[in-house]
Amino acid sequence: MSNSGIQLIALPDFPLIQPGDDLFDLTLKGLSRAGETLATGDILVVAQKIVSKAENRYVDLSGITPSFKAQDLAKQVEKDPRLVEVILSESNEVVRTCPGVLVVEHKLGYVMANAGVDASNIEHEGSTESRTGDRVLLLPTNPDSSAAELAKSLSQHGGCPVGVIINDSVGRAWRNGTVGLALGAAGFPALYDRRGEQDLFGRTLEVSEVALADQIAAAAALVQGEGDEGLPVVLVRGVSWPETALPNNAQNLLRPKHKDLFR
Amino acid sequence: MSNSGIQLIALPDFPLIQPGDDLFDLTLKGLSRAGETLATGDILVVAQKIVSKAENRYVDLSGITPSFKAQDLAKQVEKDPRLVEVILSESNEVVRTCPGVLVVEHKLGYVMANAGVDASNIEHEGSTESRTGDRVLLLPTNPDSSAAELAKSLSQHGGCPVGVIINDSVGRAWRNGTVGLALGAAGFPALYDRRGEQDLFGRTLEVSEVALADQIAAAAALVQGEGDEGLPVVLVRGVSWPETALPNNAQNLLRPKHKDLFR
Repeated sequence: MSNSGIQLIALPDFPLIQPGDDLFDLTLKGLSRAGETLATGDILVVAQKIVSKAENRYVDLSGITPSFKAQDLAKQVEKDPRLVEVILSESNEVVRTCPGVLVVEHKLGYVMANAGVDASNIEHEGSTESRTGDRVLLLPTNPDSSAAELAKSLSQHGGCPVGVIINDSVGRAWRNGTVGLALGAAGFPALYDRRGEQDLFGRTLEVSEVALADQIAAAAALVQGEGDEGLPVVLVRGVSWPETALPNNAQNLLRPKHKDLFR
Repeated sequence: MSNSGIQLIALPDFPLIQPGDDLFDLTLKGLSRAGETLATGDILVVAQKIVSKAENRYVDLSGITPSFKAQDLAKQVEKDPRLVEVILSESNEVVRTCPGVLVVEHKLGYVMANAGVDASNIEHEGSTESRTGDRVLLLPTNPDSSAAELAKSLSQHGGCPVGVIINDSVGRAWRNGTVGLALGAAGFPALYDRRGEQDLFGRTLEVSEVALADQIAAAAALVQGEGDEGLPVVLVRGVSWPETALPNNAQNLLRPKHKDLFR
């Protein structure tokens, strides 16, 4: 394993994404604009938000009638009851609440604030006067599947194995600030099991499951930014792993509740 | 802010570190071997382990007499009572325990397993037959101070502002696998406050504190590896932030206990 150099290259001038847009085609065009062709081991990191937009995961809050449960919870967390209704419909359970904060287990297992339902970087109908629009954006239906589909298309096109990550910026227990995290992954070991490998002095490694996809997702987030940069797709080149490490997806990064000491 | 390209370059052939070694000097030599000179905005990420070694943070367990408290806890967590004694002496409090797991709040505020006390990648006295040696390695005395000192020296030498991160690979709530995390940081905004900035559509960002140092620490860990690679220092080039974002250190990444819903 030789990772002595890694490059993160944002695909320039990525267009705003509309429902139904073909991210495979747009990624190829972005690679072309960047002057890059796909190489073995390349990993494309795609911001969750554009995958959700392409999948038309918009929900118009004006069509939502909050349940009594959502209304009660909305008071506790000081959020729009309709938004809370949408969050609950995307969740397995509420994990923690306090004023301003609603942490849930998303239906797909992610523990995160607001089930990833987002109201920023979304085009709202009407003029700039109506910025407090009612449209919100859910996470992609199945980020691992979306990543696998894109990885397959890119690998076929490039004639070489290529990985894909769908990442989002999320908060954490214990620490301030968000970091990029992998919601979906394909084409490489998202969770890389190094147990059994040895350290420099021939001792077996103790802690050795590495969240490779999360580290790549965090790295890519440095390039994507969060605000007005508009660089949602990043080519990550030079990450390597042993051939013995088999590809797995982002579901492997989720610690089962019964093994989790922190919920 | 234009982060359209980032490079991660491991400094090759880094020597094994002995107590008293000068990491500033060794980093300069490593940069020279890599054919790199320091540039404005460069961030050097240094593995915690070599900082601890240079600071001679070794403890020989054979000289430790575990307290009754450590002995009791050692039974619960199925660890060496002497190691548990050392972990407790490095900690403010025990956060969670189960067989095999001891999560504490380190004296410096990090919530992590075993207070970061580590027995891997440490040279043990005697032959390869005595691999189960008794020497363990504590975290650096003050990673933020160590980072600040190194950043100052590197900036003076390079004639340009250079940042430093001291990183470690740690486990997380909710998710499997370790990720690189910043224990110490200097010379750039470790926690980057984007509140007040606007998104692509002119809306004020809602979640906008970014753990910049943790993202860079995770990126660098992709290059450092965990095992037998021996690439403890990584040059990260191309991360940018607005001039209005003031440098701050890794203590800013710690969520105060009273604001933390998960301990």
